[in-house]
Amino acid sequence: MPEYKAPLRDMQFVMHELLESEKLYQTLPGYEDATADLMNAIVDEGAKFAENVLSPLNQSGDEEGCTWSPEGVKTPEGFAAAYQQYVEGGWPALPADPTYGGQGMPSFLGSIMSEMIGTANWSWGMYPGLSHGAVNTLEAHGDEEQKRKYLTKLIEGSWTGTMCLTESHCGSDLGLLRTKAEPQADGSYAITGNKIFISAGEHDMAENIVHIVLARLPDAPEGTKGISLFIVPKFNVNDDGSLGERNAVDCASIEHKMGIKASATCVMTFDGAKGYLIGPPNKGLACMFTFMNTARIGTAIQGLAHGELSYQGALAYARDRLAMRSLSGPKNPDGPADPIIVHADVRRMLLTQKALAEGSRAFIYFLAQQGDIVHAGDEERAKAADDLLAFLTPIAKAFITETGFESANLGLQVFGGHGFIREWGMEQIVRDARISTLYEGTTGIQALDLLGRKVLGSGGQLLMSFTGLMDEFCAAHTDAADAPYIDALKQYKDEWLEMSMKIGEAAMQNPDEAGAAAVDYLMYSGYVTLAYFWARMAVLARQKIAAAEGDTSFYEAKLMTARFYFDRLLPRTQAHKQVLLSGADNLMQMPEELFAI
Amino acid sequence: MPEYKAPLRDMQFVMHELLESEKLYQTLPGYEDATADLMNAIVDEGAKFAENVLSPLNQSGDEEGCTWSPEGVKTPEGFAAAYQQYVEGGWPALPADPTYGGQGMPSFLGSIMSEMIGTANWSWGMYPGLSHGAVNTLEAHGDEEQKRKYLTKLIEGSWTGTMCLTESHCGSDLGLLRTKAEPQADGSYAITGNKIFISAGEHDMAENIVHIVLARLPDAPEGTKGISLFIVPKFNVNDDGSLGERNAVDCASIEHKMGIKASATCVMTFDGAKGYLIGPPNKGLACMFTFMNTARIGTAIQGLAHGELSYQGALAYARDRLAMRSLSGPKNPDGPADPIIVHADVRRMLLTQKALAEGSRAFIYFLAQQGDIVHAGDEERAKAADDLLAFLTPIAKAFITETGFESANLGLQVFGGHGFIREWGMEQIVRDARISTLYEGTTGIQALDLLGRKVLGSGGQLLMSFTGLMDEFCAAHTDAADAPYIDALKQYKDEWLEMSMKIGEAAMQNPDEAGAAAVDYLMYSGYVTLAYFWARMAVLARQKIAAAEGDTSFYEAKLMTARFYFDRLLPRTQAHKQVLLSGADNLMQMPEELFAI
Repeated sequence: MPEYKAPLRDMQFVMHELLESEKLYQTLPGYEDATADLMNAIVDEGAKFAENVLSPLNQSGDEEGCTWSPEGVKTPEGFAAAYQQYVEGGWPALPADPTYGGQGMPSFLGSIMSEMIGTANWSWGMYPGLSHGAVNTLEAHGDEEQKRKYLTKLIEGSWTGTMCLTESHCGSDLGLLRTKAEPQADGSYAITGNKIFISAGEHDMAENIVHIVLARLPDAPEGTKGISLFIVPKFNVNDDGSLGERNAVDCASIEHKMGIKASATCVMTFDGAKGYLIGPPNKGLACMFTFMNTARIGTAIQGLAHGELSYQGALAYARDRLAMRSLSGPKNPDGPADPIIVHADVRRMLLTQKALAEGSRAFIYFLAQQGDIVHAGDEERAKAADDLLAFLTPIAKAFITETGFESANLGLQVFGGHGFIREWGMEQIVRDARISTLYEGTTGIQALDLLGRKVLGSGGQLLMSFTGLMDEFCAAHTDAADAPYIDALKQYKDEWLEMSMKIGEAAMQNPDEAGAAAVDYLMYSGYVTLAYFWARMAVLARQKIAAAEGDTSFYEAKLMTARFYFDRLLPRTQAHKQVLLSGADNLMQMPEELFAI
Repeated sequence: MPEYKAPLRDMQFVMHELLESEKLYQTLPGYEDATADLMNAIVDEGAKFAENVLSPLNQSGDEEGCTWSPEGVKTPEGFAAAYQQYVEGGWPALPADPTYGGQGMPSFLGSIMSEMIGTANWSWGMYPGLSHGAVNTLEAHGDEEQKRKYLTKLIEGSWTGTMCLTESHCGSDLGLLRTKAEPQADGSYAITGNKIFISAGEHDMAENIVHIVLARLPDAPEGTKGISLFIVPKFNVNDDGSLGERNAVDCASIEHKMGIKASATCVMTFDGAKGYLIGPPNKGLACMFTFMNTARIGTAIQGLAHGELSYQGALAYARDRLAMRSLSGPKNPDGPADPIIVHADVRRMLLTQKALAEGSRAFIYFLAQQGDIVHAGDEERAKAADDLLAFLTPIAKAFITETGFESANLGLQVFGGHGFIREWGMEQIVRDARISTLYEGTTGIQALDLLGRKVLGSGGQLLMSFTGLMDEFCAAHTDAADAPYIDALKQYKDEWLEMSMKIGEAAMQNPDEAGAAAVDYLMYSGYVTLAYFWARMAVLARQKIAAAEGDTSFYEAKLMTARFYFDRLLPRTQAHKQVLLSGADNLMQMPEELFAI
């Protein structure tokens, strides 16, 4: 298994040089403490925890997995102790509300922590990750008593949380869900039903688990408009905060999965369990939407994480493994063969990984900042940031996980046959990565959200909120040395707008046209979005080199990677473009019975 | 796990209607018995064996895996019994030399059997598959005594075989191998060394195992020119054919792998084991080359197999699973939601799988026929077929396995989160498929073989042997109804030739240009090659519909799938083209130390 080393230089480049975080947070009330020095200190500490505590448990966690018994779920050796260290380090509180014990740091820093934790050990990171979902829900929609009772413990980390949405017959289509909530005389609700795919639903890492559950009230309208949100604690909580009786919620079994095996994926049964309504009745799905973007960016981070780890493993191997001679003559004439990093095709794979990881990092950090602006900015800034988030989140989630899976596979490929062998750890990365294009909304669901709801649904306004940024950037950079990037970006931006218009027109005639174009449209959008970030990084790197600022070799590598991105990854847009303009007929004309004869 | 059903209608379409096998084999001496009726009867029987015996062992074999002990390797429950049935059915003898007990059927039929066996249970198919490699080697290079002693038993199936090539430090680069062969007084050789990744190296399915081993004679030249080929039996064989003493060859351990877990991948130690030279000294690698194409087409079949099985699973699920409503209005108004096959994006995934499987099937069957023509055709036909095989084999191996892995993943994706859960069996297909782009030469190795050795090495002659077929086909089909396919094919053919020329010129200046273009060139070539087969199938289907021959709906599905291929898969060439023409600098300029800072 590759040992994870946090790429701190690149992270700092994005945080400070590209995105000027200190300057931003000085302007956001409540975040003024987030100076560059403080952020670096936190990230350095987080890196140590990820590298020294979590990374060594990644492969052993996969091998051992979780085990279920009627008494509960045992997580792999070392997981609970690592969680204890995490709590003692105060990490759960980092981006949380200070009123309830949080440290009030930007969620931007929380995302960077998630990146490091997830790259070191994605399975482990699922436990605090799901807690984070519960914290967000309670911060936004809980009442004072609920916050006092549950939120403080979650922020402290002595309890963890879950999100109980999916049922076996419905995942993407939550309108079909059946779990019931019956009002009780004491103001609570009796929750009855079965939930599946509940990450961290049961484990041995914390003394209580706070489930956030979607269920239907007795008189609820059908479909998505009749869903409410409930708190269901594993142990009921007394008024003094002490733990009471065991609630009627149980983990019936855990799933056997392709990957993230150390993350307990639970089947949860609610058998008249005591639950408490959060937010208004029948508005559960709307409440969930308030942090859907956060959860989806959290999953985008998974694409970055697995891509980065696979890159680190593949790079080390490519420098070490000797096979064949460079086509242009021996590069290691004293050895029996050349290290495989001399071969153009190995470089193609490594550079693809590098360009995707660094581009995705810039994209994700940018989005995380937008989240903080929505939270703390003035109305106008919040609105602008919210528009950007609405538009870019489905792109980030689907594009970064799809390309992250590609990247994980490229790293395995660099190892040749050895990549298929478990001890090297490269195949685990592929297995772990495979879930990321599925959960939190599949790629197909993200694509419909992007094209249907966001682009066409806003009459193109949300798209233009982002292309507006591209315009500004292009207009501001007229140096001839930047022209290769700027010109390409302008051209793609025009093409993007034009294509969106065409699809919009076609979809007006036939809604299936949107469905037929959606995934290719999303992937096209992803490549262009990353091109924007790569162009920004390239321009900045060129300026730094020109000014002879800092370590020039870092900026030179950045420039070369940008060039690689524009030359070898961005052209994929042209295939997506042709395909998405080919119309819906070639998908819809085949009668169902002709799919197999 | 999807239950495999052999797609007999499509297989027969390719065998008889597209490739007119009976007509071909009437012209090949020794194969005149291979009538359509006989071939169908054999395939029908083979389908039953694959469906009823092997398919039910696929998931259980993965769950149980192989277990190693000092006494040997235990294959999963049911594997040995299935092998016994296979032997009793006479299957090992199907395409083998009648002089040594074979049935002398075309190897074309052997490939079709491999397809069905491999789709039903790839791991199981590895055992007879490796025997087949040993049979080919002995048929081509063994002397009379070796054939009598070993080949008859392999053809009978009571013994199995292996191919021992790889060592831990060398896979792609066999010139580095170290296993030694010391001549002994009795004319045998003492073989000493370690081999890894030896499929079927040890198991409990047959009474003896015949290892074909690459090793160096004491005075051998360095590199690939000093490698010889040896027979090393697990049990020495007495002159009367009975088993003698255990030979000094052992399975030291088996690998823990991502997939094909029921296939024993062995570390083999040779400790002065008795071996017998096959073929001339120091010509071992050349001897291996004589059937490298067969082995590579065997691996191409894996891409088809996993793509087909994943398609069968995904199609059944897509018809069954209800989620959301069609964008163009409910298609299942009485149910709570529509089956997901109504959604354009689910159709995009299914049609991608279908188009890849059916196109790959045509491509592979065509290649298998060429193998028989090389074997039995007159000199001129054999030369032409050999040229086609030389050119098309690396394309088939790499392109069909790369797209087969994509297809396996698309099938998993159709299942949403359920695809990640082991019980559905879809993730096993992905894990099993992952090895196919690695062994028998990685995609990168195939690409160098194609572009460097075949295209540039022949001054374009081998490429033109195939584009010549495309020309003939286009010239022969001038019906306006076929124009969309014919015109596109002509255009792509010109572009292919032109691009090849450009790369050739660039590579003359700088050999790294070939390495930098190779994989994109191969993928481009793959899409165009499949377009040729899809055009042929489309034209034929249109003719059948016009003539109202047979079941029109089959041909209509074929036409619609062809259209999908040309509209939605073939445009990927345009990305590969741009990338491969971008030159080597964007890969080679980055100094090694700048890959990570």
